[in-house]
Amino acid sequence: MSLKRIALTIGDPAGIGPEIALRVASDWSRESGAALILIGDERVLKQVAAVCDLPCPPVIEASSLESIDIAAAIISLPMEEGAVITPGQWTAETGEASYRWVCFAIEAATIGAINAIVTGPIQKEAWHAAWINYPGHTELLAAMTATNDYRMMLTAPELSCVLVTIHVPLADVAASLTIENVYTSIRLAAESMTRKLGRAARVTVCGLNPHAGEHGMFSYGEEERVIIPAIEKARSEGMTVRGPLPPDTAFVRDQRKATDVYVCMYHDQGLIPLKAIAFDDAVNVTLGLPIIRTSVDHGTAMDIAWQGVASASSLRAAIAMAIDLS
Amino acid sequence: MSLKRIALTIGDPAGIGPEIALRVASDWSRESGAALILIGDERVLKQVAAVCDLPCPPVIEASSLESIDIAAAIISLPMEEGAVITPGQWTAETGEASYRWVCFAIEAATIGAINAIVTGPIQKEAWHAAWINYPGHTELLAAMTATNDYRMMLTAPELSCVLVTIHVPLADVAASLTIENVYTSIRLAAESMTRKLGRAARVTVCGLNPHAGEHGMFSYGEEERVIIPAIEKARSEGMTVRGPLPPDTAFVRDQRKATDVYVCMYHDQGLIPLKAIAFDDAVNVTLGLPIIRTSVDHGTAMDIAWQGVASASSLRAAIAMAIDLS
Repeated sequence: MSLKRIALTIGDPAGIGPEIALRVASDWSRESGAALILIGDERVLKQVAAVCDLPCPPVIEASSLESIDIAAAIISLPMEEGAVITPGQWTAETGEASYRWVCFAIEAATIGAINAIVTGPIQKEAWHAAWINYPGHTELLAAMTATNDYRMMLTAPELSCVLVTIHVPLADVAASLTIENVYTSIRLAAESMTRKLGRAARVTVCGLNPHAGEHGMFSYGEEERVIIPAIEKARSEGMTVRGPLPPDTAFVRDQRKATDVYVCMYHDQGLIPLKAIAFDDAVNVTLGLPIIRTSVDHGTAMDIAWQGVASASSLRAAIAMAIDLS
Repeated sequence: MSLKRIALTIGDPAGIGPEIALRVASDWSRESGAALILIGDERVLKQVAAVCDLPCPPVIEASSLESIDIAAAIISLPMEEGAVITPGQWTAETGEASYRWVCFAIEAATIGAINAIVTGPIQKEAWHAAWINYPGHTELLAAMTATNDYRMMLTAPELSCVLVTIHVPLADVAASLTIENVYTSIRLAAESMTRKLGRAARVTVCGLNPHAGEHGMFSYGEEERVIIPAIEKARSEGMTVRGPLPPDTAFVRDQRKATDVYVCMYHDQGLIPLKAIAFDDAVNVTLGLPIIRTSVDHGTAMDIAWQGVASASSLRAAIAMAIDLS
């Protein structure tokens, strides 16, 4: 039986991405049913492997991808000749390289040469410095696959959250909500969790304002004008949806037990409880794409880059989820 | 030795407040060094006691407060004659009564007739229906004690949070932040925690935007224009302050261990992690007042009112904190 091919983009080369990719590759086994394909610069990976005392997988050509039968390999897309990387110091060059590696993986997934993408942590400011105008992986994936309706889901054994808005200033969140984008978030959350669980997923939708607005006392009516109509539309199509719940009590233990997936109005409404409760185990999944993509839920951790101390547990969880989905 | 006198306002009479007050009073002991004075309507308390099978403490006159030597007593400020309360159904009348009970406790504390106030849960909409224009207890306490600089702190063994803004629509949070009100929040947080711990408190300040704005990429510069100058002012006065941290990683376990008190920019930034992690144990303390006031951190739970099933653990924690502080 042929192996599933999981592309693993190594993220910003000055961060912890290369190290955690090499660490997972070092003890990966064909028994898993999948081969890991590290997408990055061979020279960088060899440097990190030497510094962190890890083995470095062999380099293969992209053309031999579909017949791969080893546990781990590298496809090398080199950085500029002579590029020097200082661990912990992102630059426009590290941003540009990490961007190019993701683009390659997306193209390979689109033509079916790989089965899923797992992305390592990038430095968003490095992308910005390289004049790359995507705020992050998710937006790039959507653009390159011409996907309009996509959402970020963060998932861990304890709780899963789908975000209506992601990388927008807090001041713009309220104005960014529409019946349509809240509804689409509910739909994508319900569809993906229902598929995963094999039964109707129980969706809990958070309010936007303190106490979910307390009937207009602490709000501009966003719950009544936007969130409730979106919930009602989803219910009329047969989805199992509760809400809008006051955000502060939505994540208490009893509510978590009654919820398969949360729909959160903004980044920190979902990510604060997720990381507080399940820091090391969370995986980022992009819903609604024609290809499968998961990601670590942490950043580049520049302060501990190339030191051999970074935890690969979020990356392992992201790979496991990618294999499950593919 | 005379007992400390802790006023316990019973909250909205149609909610769980009367029941949990009676439950704590039922096994309270003079050995604690404090007497509990329930402030409410004797008739309501007797009804709830009968329905929930709890004893009802004796009624005393306000004039005998200072010589009290029993574990628990009631000061009765009756509702309108003939008022009928349906459990779980707040009305303008239940709002008005619960407001009046709090006003009495504040006046008693101001003249020193009681040592601290512990407030039971009110229904904010019932206050609103009774034309009471305070969004909650905290604002009323501030107004009646002519306090300008006050803050709500939610505290539990696992974490404590001071809120810069409280009951404002999310859309207004960013515009509500100033160097001065962020600085004052840091100062009140540092002072109260330093007093409690007997050493310099370690304050962690959260950013406002996703990733703390990632240097302006996902913000209108609130971190740079407002939060950082406030932190620098506090540091220049000798306080131990970190931040602004990305809100989603600020509450992970390692950060909690490095933090004695968080300063949070808005209600749910602090209350989501607090309730997710420490639901039953959290206490609400109003910092900056000339009197001591703590509170339960839950609502009226109208759906289980007068059924004998409400947990009094948050109220017990609030009373313990009030005794500690007085």
